Amino acid sequence: MDQLTLTNPVFVTYAIAAAIMVLKIMLQGWITVARMMANDAGLASPEDLKPGPANRNPRPEQLAPNDDVDRSRRIHRNDLENIPAFLAIGLLFVAIAPPLAAAQWLMYGFVVARLLHTFAYSTAQRHEVRAIFYTVGSLIVIAMAVWVLAAAIPLL
Amino acid sequence: MDQLTLTNPVFVTYAIAAAIMVLKIMLQGWITVARMMANDAGLASPEDLKPGPANRNPRPEQLAPNDDVDRSRRIHRNDLENIPAFLAIGLLFVAIAPPLAAAQWLMYGFVVARLLHTFAYSTAQRHEVRAIFYTVGSLIVIAMAVWVLAAAIPLL
Amino acid sequence: MDQLTLTNPVFVTYAIAAAIMVLKIMLQGWITVARMMANDAGLASPEDLKPGPANRNPRPEQLAPNDDVDRSRRIHRNDLENIPAFLAIGLLFVAIAPPLAAAQWLMYGFVVARLLHTFAYSTAQRHEVRAIFYTVGSLIVIAMAVWVLAAAIPLL
Repeated sequence: MDQLTLTNPVFVTYAIAAAIMVLKIMLQGWITVARMMANDAGLASPEDLKPGPANRNPRPEQLAPNDDVDRSRRIHRNDLENIPAFLAIGLLFVAIAPPLAAAQWLMYGFVVARLLHTFAYSTAQRHEVRAIFYTVGSLIVIAMAVWVLAAAIPLL
Repeated sequence: MDQLTLTNPVFVTYAIAAAIMVLKIMLQGWITVARMMANDAGLASPEDLKPGPANRNPRPEQLAPNDDVDRSRRIHRNDLENIPAFLAIGLLFVAIAPPLAAAQWLMYGFVVARLLHTFAYSTAQRHEVRAIFYTVGSLIVIAMAVWVLAAAIPLL
Repeated sequence: MDQLTLTNPVFVTYAIAAAIMVLKIMLQGWITVARMMANDAGLASPEDLKPGPANRNPRPEQLAPNDDVDRSRRIHRNDLENIPAFLAIGLLFVAIAPPLAAAQWLMYGFVVARLLHTFAYSTAQRHEVRAIFYTVGSLIVIAMAVWVLAAAIPLL
């Protein structure tokens, strides 16, 4: 039976979770841009000091690190360490035809954990809070990868 | 109907766009290597100062940041913030069976925007030029993600 | 014929290689955590200095760079520059129905090359050792991308 079509509710679950996570990655780029504009700082390249519509009042100190901008970049980096792996293993998880409820708990659970991780990181919650959401997301990806291996290895 | 096969022209479009973007990511790694060799600088790890075929004349200052090498790393990072998200949402976009022309405009548009972004960044064009190409690529990914959500959510 | 199902041995090969690589990415995150705890250093955010179960004895110098922690972050970054591209092109490689032996050599070869790259990097082997494993993995991804293009472009 073909799993990777919209007639399969597990694939629909994956499509929704994956699309939300893709939007999350893209949005974080725009949050970095917004923080650079709000702080008028945290620029990354020397040529960004050329005066123009994007920088009406260039000053060398705009190239210095800015914690507000760097925080958004750290969140983005943490997303990149987790979300692409989820996007790949989620598709394979659909292919092994898991129970729908398992897919919904794992995939929507990952989405919620990552959104809460960003919220905790953005608002500088204590390390433990952020670590819990990171852990939930990470364990979900690991669980799906182990599940895929358990389904695929016997087929070798 | 099955979308994810080479008999579907939308899937062929995705395969070509995705393969070009994968080559782009890999190429940027080699550009970083080439810039490290050309500048004889920008090395990342202390052990890279061991003398050998890859470093015939080791000096501690080779570990200092080098803007030419760092520029390639920043381009690479910007790619990683955009291209894996495109690769995932592009596949889902094929699955929802969009019009072929929409897929071609969005996918080839993304490829062109990212290649122009790298060209503008590599040649240190002013911030506004790079920002325009970043924006085009980002909006295309966002548009595909919203389109996938609009197709998938009613199927829940 | 439908390629993206577990009845296709090439897809099974991809599923196993991809799941191992996803586990590799996630594991590197936990190695970074373990090194932060072992070195009691290398923290990334000011709020990580709040006392609590994750940091019983906070000191400002914990926010300074730590080479052991940074090494794991560099490995992680190198993974992110290579593995997501492999995950995407591997799936497309399955779709073009390559010979099983080619898929096994390329995909398992990529997995072995990346694991050896991490081993060489973790143990601070000389630059040349790490470069060889990086090169093997990179060339495999490039080869698969060129193969996909060669199969897809004639179908335009």
